[in-house]
Amino acid sequence: MARVSQEHLDARRRQIIDGAARCFARNGFHATSMQDVLKEVGLSAGAVYRYFRGKEELIAAIVGEVLEWIQVTFEAAAEETPPPPPDELIGRALTQVLGRRPGVGEGEASYLPRLIVQVWAETLRNEELAEVIRQGYAKVRAAWVKIVEGYQAAGMMRGDVPADHVARMMIAAAQGFVAQLALFDEVPVDALRDGLRGLMSMGVSKPA
Amino acid sequence: MARVSQEHLDARRRQIIDGAARCFARNGFHATSMQDVLKEVGLSAGAVYRYFRGKEELIAAIVGEVLEWIQVTFEAAAEETPPPPPDELIGRALTQVLGRRPGVGEGEASYLPRLIVQVWAETLRNEELAEVIRQGYAKVRAAWVKIVEGYQAAGMMRGDVPADHVARMMIAAAQGFVAQLALFDEVPVDALRDGLRGLMSMGVSKPA
Repeated sequence: MARVSQEHLDARRRQIIDGAARCFARNGFHATSMQDVLKEVGLSAGAVYRYFRGKEELIAAIVGEVLEWIQVTFEAAAEETPPPPPDELIGRALTQVLGRRPGVGEGEASYLPRLIVQVWAETLRNEELAEVIRQGYAKVRAAWVKIVEGYQAAGMMRGDVPADHVARMMIAAAQGFVAQLALFDEVPVDALRDGLRGLMSMGVSKPA
Repeated sequence: MARVSQEHLDARRRQIIDGAARCFARNGFHATSMQDVLKEVGLSAGAVYRYFRGKEELIAAIVGEVLEWIQVTFEAAAEETPPPPPDELIGRALTQVLGRRPGVGEGEASYLPRLIVQVWAETLRNEELAEVIRQGYAKVRAAWVKIVEGYQAAGMMRGDVPADHVARMMIAAAQGFVAQLALFDEVPVDALRDGLRGLMSMGVSKPA
């Protein structure tokens, strides 16, 4: 039997994940069968099932990967002193993450937002997927808490608001932006960046 | 044939909408049948179908109503000079809207967030529902643009960011907060309010 290199295994795994993500984004998670995924990636059932036992494992892998990209981006930002301001940081992170899953056709918008909104709905009845999301969210939240503490230490933000609350709010803004992209297509990343800038300019720095 | 008062018709309609919303929140939109709704509201098929032809009409009615609550809240705020600051306004609006659909059991959290996340996913394959959402969103966005213009006119916010971008960002923060409520249950409204306060304190008022 021929030996298969790790590189080959990784490339195969990537090919399957990417194909499945395109299928899910195009037709929805429920309307997509494993047959559709096989057809999209052009592999046999045997080849695919060697990596993923079914749709649930595929979706968990896709989601886990996206959460990791987000986590890495914000953990890197947390290491900077002071961290980049939120408008710049959120704009950069969204552009990076969406860019890793571009549209299927030429010039098409990323299909990630549509996928993410479906995943949120799916977590309501899939406890395993909910756990993947909870763990990923906890890590992104921890990175954001460090970033906010960096702002506060540098005197860029009032120190009397819980860093965790600001972290949650920043993640909420990004999540809501993703929802708008899924629901209304054309929403430039600039909108979120400008919006944050507007809010930041209000300068209500007096402790409550 | 006995004459039925408008009041009676309205009360019946409300009873059906509320029961359906509980069913959808509990078991998901797809796993809920019209039979489940009939059982929940304790009415015959004839009585229910007189008001709603099916699940699609029910979900559209529920969503349309929620969007109207949100719209009314922000339109009222847009009439104030200057409008209430965003942290106060968002906190107030979320408390009001979630309060209109409290949990089913005693002390339970509102089931609205779970319903909303399902509706977002559903719009990806239901064009009629997508249209209801688009129209409602456009109205809420217009109200928010007026609010932001009020901040800018009062010198509370820098005037060189497009009011529409700030409007989208504020709606995104609320949408993301709703997603977090659906995904992680315990998220106090205070978190969003404090987060906005933190961001507002950054005081980056210098034009870019």
